[in-house]
Amino acid sequence: MTSAADTQAPHHPGPLGETVVYAYLGPEGTFTEAALLSIPGAQDAVRLPAPSVNSALEMVRSGRATAAVVPIENSVEGGVSATLDALSAGPPLRILREVLVPITFVLAVRPGLALADIRTVSTHTHAWAQCREWAAANIPEAEYLPAASTAAAAVELSEAEPSFDAAICAPLVARRLGLDVLAEDIGDVRDAVTRFVMISLPGLLPEPTGSDKTTLVIPLPEDHPGALMEILEQFSSRGVNLSRIESRPTGMFLGDYFFSIDADGHVADARMADTLKGLHRISPDLRFLGSYPRADHRETEISRHTSDEAFRAADIWLESLLNGY
Amino acid sequence: MTSAADTQAPHHPGPLGETVVYAYLGPEGTFTEAALLSIPGAQDAVRLPAPSVNSALEMVRSGRATAAVVPIENSVEGGVSATLDALSAGPPLRILREVLVPITFVLAVRPGLALADIRTVSTHTHAWAQCREWAAANIPEAEYLPAASTAAAAVELSEAEPSFDAAICAPLVARRLGLDVLAEDIGDVRDAVTRFVMISLPGLLPEPTGSDKTTLVIPLPEDHPGALMEILEQFSSRGVNLSRIESRPTGMFLGDYFFSIDADGHVADARMADTLKGLHRISPDLRFLGSYPRADHRETEISRHTSDEAFRAADIWLESLLNGY
Amino acid sequence: MTSAADTQAPHHPGPLGETVVYAYLGPEGTFTEAALLSIPGAQDAVRLPAPSVNSALEMVRSGRATAAVVPIENSVEGGVSATLDALSAGPPLRILREVLVPITFVLAVRPGLALADIRTVSTHTHAWAQCREWAAANIPEAEYLPAASTAAAAVELSEAEPSFDAAICAPLVARRLGLDVLAEDIGDVRDAVTRFVMISLPGLLPEPTGSDKTTLVIPLPEDHPGALMEILEQFSSRGVNLSRIESRPTGMFLGDYFFSIDADGHVADARMADTLKGLHRISPDLRFLGSYPRADHRETEISRHTSDEAFRAADIWLESLLNGY
Amino acid sequence: MTSAADTQAPHHPGPLGETVVYAYLGPEGTFTEAALLSIPGAQDAVRLPAPSVNSALEMVRSGRATAAVVPIENSVEGGVSATLDALSAGPPLRILREVLVPITFVLAVRPGLALADIRTVSTHTHAWAQCREWAAANIPEAEYLPAASTAAAAVELSEAEPSFDAAICAPLVARRLGLDVLAEDIGDVRDAVTRFVMISLPGLLPEPTGSDKTTLVIPLPEDHPGALMEILEQFSSRGVNLSRIESRPTGMFLGDYFFSIDADGHVADARMADTLKGLHRISPDLRFLGSYPRADHRETEISRHTSDEAFRAADIWLESLLNGY
Repeated sequence: MTSAADTQAPHHPGPLGETVVYAYLGPEGTFTEAALLSIPGAQDAVRLPAPSVNSALEMVRSGRATAAVVPIENSVEGGVSATLDALSAGPPLRILREVLVPITFVLAVRPGLALADIRTVSTHTHAWAQCREWAAANIPEAEYLPAASTAAAAVELSEAEPSFDAAICAPLVARRLGLDVLAEDIGDVRDAVTRFVMISLPGLLPEPTGSDKTTLVIPLPEDHPGALMEILEQFSSRGVNLSRIESRPTGMFLGDYFFSIDADGHVADARMADTLKGLHRISPDLRFLGSYPRADHRETEISRHTSDEAFRAADIWLESLLNGY
Repeated sequence: MTSAADTQAPHHPGPLGETVVYAYLGPEGTFTEAALLSIPGAQDAVRLPAPSVNSALEMVRSGRATAAVVPIENSVEGGVSATLDALSAGPPLRILREVLVPITFVLAVRPGLALADIRTVSTHTHAWAQCREWAAANIPEAEYLPAASTAAAAVELSEAEPSFDAAICAPLVARRLGLDVLAEDIGDVRDAVTRFVMISLPGLLPEPTGSDKTTLVIPLPEDHPGALMEILEQFSSRGVNLSRIESRPTGMFLGDYFFSIDADGHVADARMADTLKGLHRISPDLRFLGSYPRADHRETEISRHTSDEAFRAADIWLESLLNGY
Repeated sequence: MTSAADTQAPHHPGPLGETVVYAYLGPEGTFTEAALLSIPGAQDAVRLPAPSVNSALEMVRSGRATAAVVPIENSVEGGVSATLDALSAGPPLRILREVLVPITFVLAVRPGLALADIRTVSTHTHAWAQCREWAAANIPEAEYLPAASTAAAAVELSEAEPSFDAAICAPLVARRLGLDVLAEDIGDVRDAVTRFVMISLPGLLPEPTGSDKTTLVIPLPEDHPGALMEILEQFSSRGVNLSRIESRPTGMFLGDYFFSIDADGHVADARMADTLKGLHRISPDLRFLGSYPRADHRETEISRHTSDEAFRAADIWLESLLNGY
Repeated sequence: MTSAADTQAPHHPGPLGETVVYAYLGPEGTFTEAALLSIPGAQDAVRLPAPSVNSALEMVRSGRATAAVVPIENSVEGGVSATLDALSAGPPLRILREVLVPITFVLAVRPGLALADIRTVSTHTHAWAQCREWAAANIPEAEYLPAASTAAAAVELSEAEPSFDAAICAPLVARRLGLDVLAEDIGDVRDAVTRFVMISLPGLLPEPTGSDKTTLVIPLPEDHPGALMEILEQFSSRGVNLSRIESRPTGMFLGDYFFSIDADGHVADARMADTLKGLHRISPDLRFLGSYPRADHRETEISRHTSDEAFRAADIWLESLLNGY
């Protein structure tokens, strides 16, 4: 494997002065932008909000953006299914990095307004669903008005003559727009976290770190009681753990599925490479969406029997057999 | 098993004149209401739109509603994660029925307006994402305004002084509100279908039909490479096919999962009953969310080795051994 | 299960004065007789040597013997294949007990003869093969004459005008016949042990002791790469360990197999009963050859998920589901 | 893999005039010699009967014999356990060929004797066990005298003053010694076949033929309910079928096993090579005993997913991923 460090890679933006352009699921001020801003160098890059996951990915495929940041799990503002489906079809793309963003909502108002004055509140419908308990207890009389995103609500609030009194949004956008925060961390679920990924065209792979994740899209080769087992056996028989699995309809016809899977480890690890080869044999249309560092830095546990050394020793042994020893 | 036909069951609404009350993820006129209306008897029942999946389910738990209809897969207007998570915690609930609704969007306007006149269009953000190709081709200049739901956009359009010119919504609500439909089936994905479920308190189970589905929530007992295999082996070793699997974080801490699973067959089938007992042994906190008829009426395939007869024969054989024959 | 202690059982020979008759693979004085004599009560029973395993078992089937003792593993004097095959066909029989006998050979001569005087030595061909190293070192010039069994050699030696000078046999028979033992423990393998079983007609099962073994004959239902796995999965998915497995041709045609298997545990254990039922479904012609105490008293290890309590809890849970809770 | 055809191999005996020496489990005239004689070229080679399997193999290990022929399954005259155990320990050996020999017994007498004259009959105890039904029906009065082998009985009969009247032996030896055959095919089991193997020092492998067998000795890495499954999964997950499996105690201590396994296919097949590497990782002390043509010429069935092409395609795909495509 050629190392990403050997040359100028999209995930090492701009060392030679080129302009790095990031697309992301917009608008500005959402949790997705927060995810993007946590990536080193993103502060100095061009950042283009896209109206949908598909359009963000399209900007990457067409070369207008170096990479895109989109949600892939648990998103407040949707897009997860779109991301899973978009990565499973069309020209291949690669995940270079994952980013975890804590989801904390604030209640923001124009400077000077008090809690008791709030008669209307706006935010994305999903954010509203997640703050309903707090709202019922604290602003029970407030009417809800939908917004296209949490950020859109905040932006409208900061403009002349907003049509509502308060916005539920991310701390980032409230601060940036100079809004007053009347209450923090008002989501009903504490410690909620959303996972985002940075996506690019295929190219050099991020180097293995010992704490990596590999994302795959695997069409179910046949639909019978053991078919999923055959796929999962490829992982378990090499000691590879899964951290996410979702069946998704292919969209072709009912009963036709693919699996979106995250597995612990890097394709440069012998056991993961062997797993991928096993998967390719039973489902040759699988897609490798990338091997990249885990955001939580949890080290991959490796059993003695599935270490790179065990694979190397087995290769050497077999070679000797074939040579007559 | 006592049959549902023996007595007055919640999924046989109102035979003795009692008032049947259905909650559903509102507002009126969404695809969820369309799902509800397709259920026999729902036309004559009280139908209460709920602002969120959780509140719809809460109405069932508290007895204010006989049953609730909520999305469980592929929803245009969200709610799927909320449904999966709500069913996995709190007092137990049961799925009594599934409903498939084709997702077709129309462009609706107030009577008299032409396509060329549209400068602003409103709908739910997810519906907008699914109609962007059509919009780019046909109303490229139109500005987008978010709505809380597809139906909310249609409703506002039907009221005095709407703040936009057109709504993207379900055919049902456009017809009901007397709006003009300028274009039909404008979604970018043809043949999209969303799955909804009707949920009630535990009680009599729907009778097996030979084309049934069983839905389970199974906490991962331990997190190691073979743990998911151990769970799936319980199904495959009894010839039970899965039609959906999703890992979901428990919300407790990272790396702690449960699986939301749909399996072919009914708990009254011997092989499914045996599978559930096997699952209970390895993950005693699993939840049975119900056995109910498949909406697509596809018959469950049963191998010779996993038929009710094979189970009965094995029981008799073992009994004879224990009695010394 | 009715307990064996409730009534007069064949493996509790003779409490009411009836005559207990044991058949065994003869002749007298072999390791098989040693195995039989180690069984409580056998000293006082009628003991009939049989010329072959089949004839010993036939004596049980016809009622002429209460039980038979035959080798089932590692036998010096053969019979193991015959035992495995005989148990797999014909009217059903049951193993009630296993016996481990240490295999130690002695060199026996008529009183007065010295090592240097030995010119010819006789024993069973298998015993000769196991003592060849000792013979090469200690009686290198001695010529070998075959005998039908180790005991037969000893018996001939004790009679008038034997045709050889020394016999290699079990300590038991040398002592009984009053022969001189010139060398003890002359086998090339130290600590060799042979396993014998006591076989009876089907009847009351020995009671579970917590250290039991279950023996099965399982025809391979179909011959494909996963067929054996499907069988073994029935054990492993219930946490049942195997202590012996042998494939044996059925004798019908090439490529047609049955498996002779010993598994840890008793059919009265829930996990073993469930395993047997699973096996019956995939291979309905399997034979249960008995559950009986292990000769080595090693306790069966039981995981939390496969305890009788876990099975009972799963049964109760399922029952409650079917009753609508 | 270097082809056996490239050079002078032990299993292509003697092309350059060297003397080929075969050891075999003797004595002369047994079924083992019949197996040896069926090997091309063996008629012209030196053939040395060995008194035991161990000594035959020792002749190969020490270089005194080019190869040895010994029974490995279902032998009339024993040796099978000795062969399995001898191959599992000591300096490595290789199976180059298997031979199937039909087991048919004849009743041989000195010329002129009639059936009614037979008062004593001799043969190996196992052969006697296999002909007892015929003997009971046809020579019920005849007394049995054991012999070291079927051939030894025939040889003694052909010599001056034999101590018995008839021998039960192989047709080969009766014919060779000029004995009269009074009855043919007198074994109780029709169509019995014994399998023998030709064993040599490690060296060039027999070339794959499309109908091959691979023999392995695999120590059980750990003793728990799933350990054997982990081993067998290596075969089944690559579509490799087993045709024989036997657990054998290692001789070290009770509960410590190895498995003797025959699998369909050749180590030069990608799926078998991959299986062996997988086995090496979980049980690094396994022994490869050879890949060699099946005696029954039954072609190995290969699924699409486990063909050499599928393996090659997977290798190429993985290589492209690692190179950034």
